[in-house]
Amino acid sequence: MKICLEFVCLIILMLSLTMCATVQKNEYDEIDVGFCISCHQERTPGLFQSWTESKHAKKGVNCITCHTDHQAASEQKAMVFPQKCGECHKKEFEEFQKGRHSIGFDRMRIQGEYLGIPQEIRAAFCERCHSVQKRCNICHTSHTFSLKEARDPDSCGSCHLGPDHPHKEMYETSLHGTIYKLTQNPERAPRCITCHMPDGTHNSSFGIARGPVGTKSDVVNLDQIPISKEEENTRREEMLTVCTRCHSRRFAQEQLENADQVKEAGFELQDKGKGAIQEIAQEGLLYPSLAERMPHPTEGRTLVLADPQLYIGTSYLERLFFTMFKFHSIRVWKSGYHFSPAYTHGFGWTEMQLDLIDIKDEADKLRQMIQKEKKQ
Amino acid sequence: MKICLEFVCLIILMLSLTMCATVQKNEYDEIDVGFCISCHQERTPGLFQSWTESKHAKKGVNCITCHTDHQAASEQKAMVFPQKCGECHKKEFEEFQKGRHSIGFDRMRIQGEYLGIPQEIRAAFCERCHSVQKRCNICHTSHTFSLKEARDPDSCGSCHLGPDHPHKEMYETSLHGTIYKLTQNPERAPRCITCHMPDGTHNSSFGIARGPVGTKSDVVNLDQIPISKEEENTRREEMLTVCTRCHSRRFAQEQLENADQVKEAGFELQDKGKGAIQEIAQEGLLYPSLAERMPHPTEGRTLVLADPQLYIGTSYLERLFFTMFKFHSIRVWKSGYHFSPAYTHGFGWTEMQLDLIDIKDEADKLRQMIQKEKKQ
Amino acid sequence: MKICLEFVCLIILMLSLTMCATVQKNEYDEIDVGFCISCHQERTPGLFQSWTESKHAKKGVNCITCHTDHQAASEQKAMVFPQKCGECHKKEFEEFQKGRHSIGFDRMRIQGEYLGIPQEIRAAFCERCHSVQKRCNICHTSHTFSLKEARDPDSCGSCHLGPDHPHKEMYETSLHGTIYKLTQNPERAPRCITCHMPDGTHNSSFGIARGPVGTKSDVVNLDQIPISKEEENTRREEMLTVCTRCHSRRFAQEQLENADQVKEAGFELQDKGKGAIQEIAQEGLLYPSLAERMPHPTEGRTLVLADPQLYIGTSYLERLFFTMFKFHSIRVWKSGYHFSPAYTHGFGWTEMQLDLIDIKDEADKLRQMIQKEKKQ
Repeated sequence: MKICLEFVCLIILMLSLTMCATVQKNEYDEIDVGFCISCHQERTPGLFQSWTESKHAKKGVNCITCHTDHQAASEQKAMVFPQKCGECHKKEFEEFQKGRHSIGFDRMRIQGEYLGIPQEIRAAFCERCHSVQKRCNICHTSHTFSLKEARDPDSCGSCHLGPDHPHKEMYETSLHGTIYKLTQNPERAPRCITCHMPDGTHNSSFGIARGPVGTKSDVVNLDQIPISKEEENTRREEMLTVCTRCHSRRFAQEQLENADQVKEAGFELQDKGKGAIQEIAQEGLLYPSLAERMPHPTEGRTLVLADPQLYIGTSYLERLFFTMFKFHSIRVWKSGYHFSPAYTHGFGWTEMQLDLIDIKDEADKLRQMIQKEKKQ
Repeated sequence: MKICLEFVCLIILMLSLTMCATVQKNEYDEIDVGFCISCHQERTPGLFQSWTESKHAKKGVNCITCHTDHQAASEQKAMVFPQKCGECHKKEFEEFQKGRHSIGFDRMRIQGEYLGIPQEIRAAFCERCHSVQKRCNICHTSHTFSLKEARDPDSCGSCHLGPDHPHKEMYETSLHGTIYKLTQNPERAPRCITCHMPDGTHNSSFGIARGPVGTKSDVVNLDQIPISKEEENTRREEMLTVCTRCHSRRFAQEQLENADQVKEAGFELQDKGKGAIQEIAQEGLLYPSLAERMPHPTEGRTLVLADPQLYIGTSYLERLFFTMFKFHSIRVWKSGYHFSPAYTHGFGWTEMQLDLIDIKDEADKLRQMIQKEKKQ
Repeated sequence: MKICLEFVCLIILMLSLTMCATVQKNEYDEIDVGFCISCHQERTPGLFQSWTESKHAKKGVNCITCHTDHQAASEQKAMVFPQKCGECHKKEFEEFQKGRHSIGFDRMRIQGEYLGIPQEIRAAFCERCHSVQKRCNICHTSHTFSLKEARDPDSCGSCHLGPDHPHKEMYETSLHGTIYKLTQNPERAPRCITCHMPDGTHNSSFGIARGPVGTKSDVVNLDQIPISKEEENTRREEMLTVCTRCHSRRFAQEQLENADQVKEAGFELQDKGKGAIQEIAQEGLLYPSLAERMPHPTEGRTLVLADPQLYIGTSYLERLFFTMFKFHSIRVWKSGYHFSPAYTHGFGWTEMQLDLIDIKDEADKLRQMIQKEKKQ
């Protein structure tokens, strides 16, 4: 009887091993995953540990499944592109390609601001976030790829923050963000994905239709072509389907319309600033003048006010406008839709009014200086 | 026996139903609460879900109890005023009326800053927070009205933040705020309500007596009348009763007195800035002059430096003073009492010193320009 | 039998009491700890409660063990110096003395910035954090001295934050900080101590070798003597041992080298700003000139650009440089090593470029004014 039991155990053990081997054969083909793990368990224990905790590990998705070629991976950075992830996550990949995340790197590469700064700053700043086009693990933090992490506002906030796009800060200072922080309950208050990626869609451009997302104030599609008024209305309706899960349609519409007005008010101030500088340029008082400095990498020797304006070596007047449009104007109109009183007003509209005083005062001084020179 | 048991159950069931019916009758009178719920469960599921999790729901307080009239509520925003909440929460309502929260909306409506900006900005900024006078659910986030949420510093911080009143930021950068964040234990470190609403009082002006809360540097009561020195001392003693729960009286007193000194140091700098601008105004060098611009909505054609100064269309000098008093001075003196080194110095006193250099330099330049004009 | 049991219980109780008494005798010597506790349980209940939850309380370390002399403690602040803590925590105290924390107060006391500001601001700002040299409880928050609290990034962040050393902000806006916040798992993402105090070392200067930490751009040791190139390399290798727990050596090295380049790029901009101001000074156009103002407390009547530059009563040009070097330059190079895109660029490098425009424009204006005066 004892021998019998031992024999059964042996059979089970052998069968298990055979099954394991079979699975490994199917998954890894010729390359032995043990080869990676034996080293990486020692060399990068944190990375290895993260993977063991992932759903990938549980389902047999290992180093080779994604990184494909260990030889290549050991020589240079073993990038895994969205196409690779899309082999298993087809629906997500297709949705991803409909949103602006999927053109993030290409758009950056032709942007004047990117072209105008040295490579080390590009690498430490622009490319870290704009590589979202090429790396699903910008949001799905490797190597756990935890859904809990990817869905949290902090995940979005690792890129969407800072003076030129403080989405994180605006959300966190809104009642939405406050209640989510307090409750950690997405049924109680929305997080970023509730409105921008509802029901798990990977098209993060869902429902947004009050641009500018391009270089002009129009809302553009992925080919940079302005969308129609009808399309704009469709997207507003899309967004309202999210708001009305908690708010009455009347209330939600009122709030979005208030945001539309706030945006117009901000753009009006921005236009006043722009106008004052254009006048000075026409009077030939811009210093250094466009002729005296490096041409803009994409726009040449023209006066670029607003995107893709540079902040290097321009006149003092243009520099005043740069902070007005790049830091303050964006806070006004975007925080309107994110319901952050502090960003709409204190960090935004107030700052724009102060910018306008600065611009007008500088313009006046430039004119006074010239008048005096003429008198002499 | 079996029949007997079934009979008893039937009796109990019937009695229960009768009691329910009686309660519903008493609570909802003629309007059927089912009427609201049947729709709102579908139309605003998030809102409905929040209510079901509330103590209100458990105690039979439903839509009609607070919103009263469904007809009115469906046509426009179904505001519930503190008076309504006070019908059940009498003590809290009476305490609330003793604090400055209870005059927040009225004071805003006559404030120059409010009067000087367009309605869309008022709605998106000022009114969102100042409506605290009219809405208990600014702090008691609807529709769960969870005490845990209302008592958290983040609840207070949804209004008390931003460049012009960074109470949230000052608290979070103090040791008090740091330890509370780490422990989430109000016995270990104070949160806002520990000092400002101790033992649950809804008079949020408890213990504060080192103004200015009004337009002058005096501490004023709800009728805007400066309080006496004795009253000031009483309030300081009130506050010390809170501090000494953890600190020695000697230590707590020292800290508050240091804050008093910091406040004086900040006000001294502010006065220097103010003085420099008043001199320029007397010399007739302010540009645009008071005569050349729109009169102040409440103060007319006078030079308003400090509250209720505007930031629209003023001279460059006044704009420099605006940021000095509105953003930087408030950080110095308020962060003294909130024990935030970074806000006292880096974000505060340092910025005020830089403001003073800016103001004096601009004043010098204006004088130089004029002297040269006279020479010519 | 019943009597027997009661007798055993009595014996045990008596023995316990005797042992307690013995322990108390050994621990407290002549001073009776009950004397402190009887009062403080009433007078400072929060403080007392914190102590009861501490490991200290469990191990019999009480008021007198650390504060020694109750008489002295009741008359003035009962400071406990690191030497006292070191009596039990010898290894930690010795490591602590190798790091820069151990010279924090002494270095502050001879710093020009400290000497140039009034005592109330020193007390509310500088001394709160620089007293780290004298108080272990700056990090080990009293009176629980919880390891969980001390090890959290928020503990470090209570001092390492704000415009002039935003380590907290840089960490929180990096992917490291984001993932730690999301997971609260130090195996998943590093917190401050992972890199700066690995394996619990109390030498917080571990692995840092890309200064400046002193007044020049060299990396200096605790005696302010620049370290050798070899020592620099050793420290970089130290740091890499931490990075490679999760990242490949190649990747980690690339990232640190990118940070080196970012630092150089920032310093280059800073030098351009400095050069422009030095030229103006040589041309005698600085206003107020060095002769017209208070001498620098440690540097006398020399032009101090960068540490220990003051921000009080200087020329407008120097004030522009102050924010460039003190706020913006530090963000560029430190955030390079902390992997915060927003601080490297938006809050840093962009601001430095704007500063440079401001400085050059002001220099031009000063020259123009003088030229005009000469013409007249």
